Amino acid sequence: MTYALQTEASSLNEVAVMGVKNSKEYIERINRQRMKIWYQGKQVHGLLSEHPAFSGLLHTQSEMYDLQHLPETSEQMTYQESLSGDNFGLSFLAPRHRNDLVRRRKMMELWASHHHGFLGRSPDYMNTTLMSLYTAADMLAEYDKGHADNLRSYYEYCRSNDITLSHAFIQPLASRWSEQVDDVTDSIAAKVIDIQADGIVVSGAFMMATQAATCDEMLVFPSPLPSLLENDNPYAFAFAVPNDLEGITFICRDSCAGISSFDYPLSSRYEEMDAMVIFDHVFVPKDRIFYLGKEEIGYRLFSEGQFHTHTGHQVVTRYIAKTEFFLGLIARLADEQNAGLEPINMDRVARLLTILENLKALRLSAEILAEPDHYGYYVPAKRPLIAATLQFPAFHQEMLGMLQELSSSNLIMNPSASDLNSDAGSYIHTYLKGAGTTARDRIALFRLAWELGAGPFGGRQSQFEKFFFGNTRTISSRMFNSIQLSSYKKMIEDFLHITS
Amino acid sequence: MTYALQTEASSLNEVAVMGVKNSKEYIERINRQRMKIWYQGKQVHGLLSEHPAFSGLLHTQSEMYDLQHLPETSEQMTYQESLSGDNFGLSFLAPRHRNDLVRRRKMMELWASHHHGFLGRSPDYMNTTLMSLYTAADMLAEYDKGHADNLRSYYEYCRSNDITLSHAFIQPLASRWSEQVDDVTDSIAAKVIDIQADGIVVSGAFMMATQAATCDEMLVFPSPLPSLLENDNPYAFAFAVPNDLEGITFICRDSCAGISSFDYPLSSRYEEMDAMVIFDHVFVPKDRIFYLGKEEIGYRLFSEGQFHTHTGHQVVTRYIAKTEFFLGLIARLADEQNAGLEPINMDRVARLLTILENLKALRLSAEILAEPDHYGYYVPAKRPLIAATLQFPAFHQEMLGMLQELSSSNLIMNPSASDLNSDAGSYIHTYLKGAGTTARDRIALFRLAWELGAGPFGGRQSQFEKFFFGNTRTISSRMFNSIQLSSYKKMIEDFLHITS
Amino acid sequence: MTYALQTEASSLNEVAVMGVKNSKEYIERINRQRMKIWYQGKQVHGLLSEHPAFSGLLHTQSEMYDLQHLPETSEQMTYQESLSGDNFGLSFLAPRHRNDLVRRRKMMELWASHHHGFLGRSPDYMNTTLMSLYTAADMLAEYDKGHADNLRSYYEYCRSNDITLSHAFIQPLASRWSEQVDDVTDSIAAKVIDIQADGIVVSGAFMMATQAATCDEMLVFPSPLPSLLENDNPYAFAFAVPNDLEGITFICRDSCAGISSFDYPLSSRYEEMDAMVIFDHVFVPKDRIFYLGKEEIGYRLFSEGQFHTHTGHQVVTRYIAKTEFFLGLIARLADEQNAGLEPINMDRVARLLTILENLKALRLSAEILAEPDHYGYYVPAKRPLIAATLQFPAFHQEMLGMLQELSSSNLIMNPSASDLNSDAGSYIHTYLKGAGTTARDRIALFRLAWELGAGPFGGRQSQFEKFFFGNTRTISSRMFNSIQLSSYKKMIEDFLHITS
Amino acid sequence: MTYALQTEASSLNEVAVMGVKNSKEYIERINRQRMKIWYQGKQVHGLLSEHPAFSGLLHTQSEMYDLQHLPETSEQMTYQESLSGDNFGLSFLAPRHRNDLVRRRKMMELWASHHHGFLGRSPDYMNTTLMSLYTAADMLAEYDKGHADNLRSYYEYCRSNDITLSHAFIQPLASRWSEQVDDVTDSIAAKVIDIQADGIVVSGAFMMATQAATCDEMLVFPSPLPSLLENDNPYAFAFAVPNDLEGITFICRDSCAGISSFDYPLSSRYEEMDAMVIFDHVFVPKDRIFYLGKEEIGYRLFSEGQFHTHTGHQVVTRYIAKTEFFLGLIARLADEQNAGLEPINMDRVARLLTILENLKALRLSAEILAEPDHYGYYVPAKRPLIAATLQFPAFHQEMLGMLQELSSSNLIMNPSASDLNSDAGSYIHTYLKGAGTTARDRIALFRLAWELGAGPFGGRQSQFEKFFFGNTRTISSRMFNSIQLSSYKKMIEDFLHITS
Repeated sequence: MTYALQTEASSLNEVAVMGVKNSKEYIERINRQRMKIWYQGKQVHGLLSEHPAFSGLLHTQSEMYDLQHLPETSEQMTYQESLSGDNFGLSFLAPRHRNDLVRRRKMMELWASHHHGFLGRSPDYMNTTLMSLYTAADMLAEYDKGHADNLRSYYEYCRSNDITLSHAFIQPLASRWSEQVDDVTDSIAAKVIDIQADGIVVSGAFMMATQAATCDEMLVFPSPLPSLLENDNPYAFAFAVPNDLEGITFICRDSCAGISSFDYPLSSRYEEMDAMVIFDHVFVPKDRIFYLGKEEIGYRLFSEGQFHTHTGHQVVTRYIAKTEFFLGLIARLADEQNAGLEPINMDRVARLLTILENLKALRLSAEILAEPDHYGYYVPAKRPLIAATLQFPAFHQEMLGMLQELSSSNLIMNPSASDLNSDAGSYIHTYLKGAGTTARDRIALFRLAWELGAGPFGGRQSQFEKFFFGNTRTISSRMFNSIQLSSYKKMIEDFLHITS
Repeated sequence: MTYALQTEASSLNEVAVMGVKNSKEYIERINRQRMKIWYQGKQVHGLLSEHPAFSGLLHTQSEMYDLQHLPETSEQMTYQESLSGDNFGLSFLAPRHRNDLVRRRKMMELWASHHHGFLGRSPDYMNTTLMSLYTAADMLAEYDKGHADNLRSYYEYCRSNDITLSHAFIQPLASRWSEQVDDVTDSIAAKVIDIQADGIVVSGAFMMATQAATCDEMLVFPSPLPSLLENDNPYAFAFAVPNDLEGITFICRDSCAGISSFDYPLSSRYEEMDAMVIFDHVFVPKDRIFYLGKEEIGYRLFSEGQFHTHTGHQVVTRYIAKTEFFLGLIARLADEQNAGLEPINMDRVARLLTILENLKALRLSAEILAEPDHYGYYVPAKRPLIAATLQFPAFHQEMLGMLQELSSSNLIMNPSASDLNSDAGSYIHTYLKGAGTTARDRIALFRLAWELGAGPFGGRQSQFEKFFFGNTRTISSRMFNSIQLSSYKKMIEDFLHITS
Repeated sequence: MTYALQTEASSLNEVAVMGVKNSKEYIERINRQRMKIWYQGKQVHGLLSEHPAFSGLLHTQSEMYDLQHLPETSEQMTYQESLSGDNFGLSFLAPRHRNDLVRRRKMMELWASHHHGFLGRSPDYMNTTLMSLYTAADMLAEYDKGHADNLRSYYEYCRSNDITLSHAFIQPLASRWSEQVDDVTDSIAAKVIDIQADGIVVSGAFMMATQAATCDEMLVFPSPLPSLLENDNPYAFAFAVPNDLEGITFICRDSCAGISSFDYPLSSRYEEMDAMVIFDHVFVPKDRIFYLGKEEIGYRLFSEGQFHTHTGHQVVTRYIAKTEFFLGLIARLADEQNAGLEPINMDRVARLLTILENLKALRLSAEILAEPDHYGYYVPAKRPLIAATLQFPAFHQEMLGMLQELSSSNLIMNPSASDLNSDAGSYIHTYLKGAGTTARDRIALFRLAWELGAGPFGGRQSQFEKFFFGNTRTISSRMFNSIQLSSYKKMIEDFLHITS
Repeated sequence: MTYALQTEASSLNEVAVMGVKNSKEYIERINRQRMKIWYQGKQVHGLLSEHPAFSGLLHTQSEMYDLQHLPETSEQMTYQESLSGDNFGLSFLAPRHRNDLVRRRKMMELWASHHHGFLGRSPDYMNTTLMSLYTAADMLAEYDKGHADNLRSYYEYCRSNDITLSHAFIQPLASRWSEQVDDVTDSIAAKVIDIQADGIVVSGAFMMATQAATCDEMLVFPSPLPSLLENDNPYAFAFAVPNDLEGITFICRDSCAGISSFDYPLSSRYEEMDAMVIFDHVFVPKDRIFYLGKEEIGYRLFSEGQFHTHTGHQVVTRYIAKTEFFLGLIARLADEQNAGLEPINMDRVARLLTILENLKALRLSAEILAEPDHYGYYVPAKRPLIAATLQFPAFHQEMLGMLQELSSSNLIMNPSASDLNSDAGSYIHTYLKGAGTTARDRIALFRLAWELGAGPFGGRQSQFEKFFFGNTRTISSRMFNSIQLSSYKKMIEDFLHITS
């Protein structure tokens, strides 16, 4: 079953003859779009795959899509639907058995081993997001059968065409303290400003959408703002649109990407551009809408779709890949500094291994203790995954601290490839060599340490990890609300023979 | 098969008609022994079960032994050996299948739910210790077949008679910097001072043996001190002896135990006395010796017996019980302080749940990833358990901190049961009541908080947890040495295209 | 000018022929009182100076009072009033010059060097409290000239008679959520229940008054509870009464005090008993009342009397003495453990010195930057002292952690003096000696470490320090409110050329 | 008295007609030099003051030099020598009285208020360094009177000409594990390779010299490597040279500097370039040498010159300026986020004020407790300054953490000035405005937060602060060695009546 998008911009269904995209198709589609993207005050024209702010990421992700086709990895990356016999990317698989979770995890591990945890919006993240909402489509039918059908069709469309998705949900700060949020002219949060026979018109902004400018489509699902209009809340909606729909504008931040993979080993591959997304009287066709008008539907969609749990499974897999990267880097740096067996370094490595064991054990628990939800889909155990997301920001800071401590002045003073190749290069070759390393290798290592521990790419990663799933207070509440404490309190009361 | 100890002191094999002890047998055996115990400068005479420094613990453990016989728990607590059809305590079970580990854990959970993690030397700890050494008995035969037989026989004897064991291994500090450790007169570490036809004579001290004075027997296995006499190192040995063997003296510390279970809800039940153990020309019969003279054997026995891993499985189960106790107590205290839903308290509970999830996930991983060793015994995965022991001291401090913060002045000023019952009691009933609690219940709660958070029982627990499996540096090294880092370092080298 | 207390209980003015008390007078007065004290469910009769729960403290403080008379210290401890030529304890001195602050500090240092910071209610603390309120007596006259006179007279009475004071101010928890606090029968917070011509009648409880049962008199000044009766708020008052006034009852907690100064070197000297204080229809004479009926007066009295600042100067002096004690103890323990020059121990000592430098520098700043208030009294700079009180709880925890780390199992297993002197003593002398220390000295050292790091005395100290000046949030607010941030914000706005 | 450098490169004495430089002279001298500077693989030609990697700093420091001439600040910035009547920059003043320290501090505060603590090599730092060595010139005379004279003359030359100095001292890592450090061909650390009648020839590299490429001259004083040649150790030396001396090459790192002061408010002003400094057969004239051949002299020069203490006084002044900048920024950001009065923000501000109070109190103590050294120069108290340097790296991390927490996604997604001015600018003006702030001001604020909290300038600052005065272990040792612990240990021994 395929889904034909009813707008001019969409002829994707003609292109995609199969469910599993390769690098060429990925790049061609992105290049073919006619998005309005602003970068450094100028509108971007020309092919994104050749633009220095976007090319590194597109190249990295194109390699990832090719893993779906390589003989040695395609089986791990895809699944065959029993009914149709069609093949799809495994991150679209809605799990019906515990083993489906294991298959999903192995697929995510393979992609993560390619980006080492540095892609927060690796395609499996958004595919999992869409899959999670899809599993709760039945709930939507309680309110509007058409919306349920829209979500199911859209899921199948994305799966069949291996659509690359971004999402937009962070509202402008100023919208939070406006007192008259229902007043169209005053409001600055994105809202429905007109409802027409065949669709809705939306205006407003979203603050930060990662990879937005390099995707095919965008899921839009803000946390609804309160409104006096209980059933016609203009801030309550979810829909999906192609990126080059009339009226959408992307405004990018400065790029962190360096071009040279020697000088900038991380950002040259993994810089994910963030953008503001502006909706200026955008017409969203009726069949792209998943809910409308009632806040409660939005909350149920995320809650019953087990959004945080399904994506949490992907996120912890990313954490593990990143932690292993830190482990390797710190172990290698310690050798480089001739400090591998110093007690303080043994403590560092032991701590890194402890972090890694926690994360792996939490993921394994989430799988082993998974249970089916009432729609029959298998859901990983929730609390181990919340525990991982609650701890990782602190773990990440700890690992950065180790990296910085170990690198000392090498994190500040490091020549570049052009220096090595210059007339002054011979000095560098002589004076920067290590105990058993050439100056070139030693510089490569410390430039990596610099990008992660003191450069702008690392600065963004650090902040991104701190707020990935909300601030600490938000995740704490998620954990607190995941359990009833009464049995624990009763244990104490029984122990003391007191009453509650 | 039973083992008849060839010394006067041992007629245990007559008493024990079955492999699973009950409370009565436990108490009777302890009371019947004629140990030389010193407490507060006086030798202890009379029944230990009636002595205020020991009675609480004996009572608690007697209840635990009875769980082996109660209809609803006996199956969970014991196992039947297929050959003989005999029943034994499950903590003696040497695991041959992954499921044996699960059975062992469920048994340990049941006992831990009775002592809430406060017994560091709950009998399953020492039974597991003995079992772990037993699984490496084959290794001993490489050196001396008789020693291997001794260990196997002793294991069977303890299992058949449900012997309660302690162990002694911490050497006096001064022994560590003596330069002439081989000189008998100077040495103060325990050592073999004579080897005779039918046994050895041992003199010296061990610093701290928990529960030593209330056990049937004692395993003695110090870390060997270095010696110039490579094959006749007098500090290299392991053996087991009954507690009332001629020449053994126990010197106890001050008791933390309160008598009233209202005023001292923890120490009245869980005070485990620690003692110095003095060997003064003790004759150890030949068939009680497990190795002698070569340091290397000692290290292999612990390493190949997987001592830290098998006991680690018990230890993490104890940690989990204790963490759940803290969770219940802190949640209940927060209610008592009318603070259950304050953000700071939600953060506390979320953190406690995170600690709990880590520990549970690490234990589950250790079981799921268990593999057989080369003797065919199933061994839990090692690293998740080291991760638990490396983190728990800090977790414990954090939990104590929460308890103290939440209790404020209630941890300092609390009346006792005798005050409640005195002529001034009516004031207390009036002025110390809570929002929905009687003064009596409120006081019970805060006395518990005090014992754990500011009293001497809590002080000992805190220090005990800090050093349970060695200091941080020791456990860090254990973790560091558990893995080869080369594949992680190679990942970085490949990523950067540099050479190692 | 002397003050003759108009109640039967008070004939103190006859006893005190001079302003500076010695040990004999101190003890005699305490012993002569007829207070209603309950301890462990029984009323205390007989001399407090011979009761094991109180004698150690009384002995220690009596030595401190004698320092006021010893030739080599009396000048440092006392001052002569220029008008009358009378001598008084220096802690009563209301500072008129910066140098008065230095004199006050040197006096406090001398007393602190005697109690090493372990007495939270060393007499200089309460004398300073009274002095601070006294400096704002003029403010009281804005409301009631009589109250101002009462406070001045009471200050002079205490100063002339060297009265030992406690104070009561912590209200029962339950009182905080009562909705009808004005209803006499429901209320459990202390309140004025009758106003008579010559005084007031007060009923209710205070939760925790330190040293209350071993003082001459008690200052009573709760934070007023809100009331609908703006000018007749029955919870708004401050007064002072002798301890043995009719209707006052003290209910003590369990004592932490050991008798043997070898086994319990701290608690045998420094155990300050805490007590609940019950007022049951206590008649407070008119001339003992400092304010009545208006919350605002209470807040102004503490604020304009610079309570937290004047006492903060004493408190930071106590912190410094305690930190020096920790420094000495940890340095000595490290030597004892043969670890004085290990890098980890050098880090510990460096950290202790850093803590010490912070505290000393903050105190010095408070003195150097002192300024006169609008009554003409010199007040130490406020913020350095708040900084000290905000940090010290964490410093204290750090120091405890160092002590525990360094002591390992010696904090658990330690014989006592009675063991050393018993028939088993020779074993202890042999096996517990240190590298260059006798077993006796080594045990003395670790018993001290135990009392501080794991015993009940240390547990109370730790909790006491955590909440000394309120919880962290309270002290944070005190700091936050001490300054206007606008100039700092403006610096940023100017730097960026933006508007506020 | 002026000093005429005997090399071609030096005709500075002709230029400098007075001791106090202005912006014009500063820039002109730098521009006139003919240094060999490499940047991004190319040699730099043209005026440094117009090169984007150097111009911002030169501009900022030129403003600072002008403060020496402005009527309202010149008195605070300079001093008049009583003998000659000449004026000099106050950072050259060798303090003879306590008040000289206060004058020095006020001067440093003024400069620090201009760079807000972001210039680690503000000229007063190096001037103080030279002054500190100068105060120990008498010690050099014990070994070689000529060297003492050289140092005195050089100090006077720099002071008279207001020379801008850098320094070089960090040796290549590889040099530390070479086994044959005396072998010229193998060695890579800078060393004396020839001693000639009128000077020495030096070859080798220094790893990181801050501001090196934008100074007039360079002090060179490595920590000597060990050598078998006790009196002719080729690694033991100190000297000073002009930056454009034959044979010296500077290799710069990538610049962090942005050009737009709106987009890059910090780096556009405060980017201090770091460089490797290569000595390739550099001839150092005899009269520029301060010591030669004996390690011991080097250690004494720094120790008796009180290097860490005199510079520590400057450093803590810089810390204070930076802390105030953080305080202003965090307070302003909190307002911008509408969070100024949230409890968590009050805690943040209270913590910032506490850090500030510590630093200010430590500086004040260092001044108040200053004493003359045995050469008669006033030296600030040492330990308060070590305490500041030992704590500040952690304080800095804490402050960065607050900044990151408070800024959330604003630290990631921020448009630039060019976006604001583009055709998409109207969207930004609409959607990024704050509660009471224009989008432009709000963006300016968060770009500042980004530069400090996640950008490359902030990354370098953070690493620079972590290692400013050596790693933690080094500074800990400095503190440990600053004191005798015996009196503290004796206090404990006396308390316990034990022997040492």
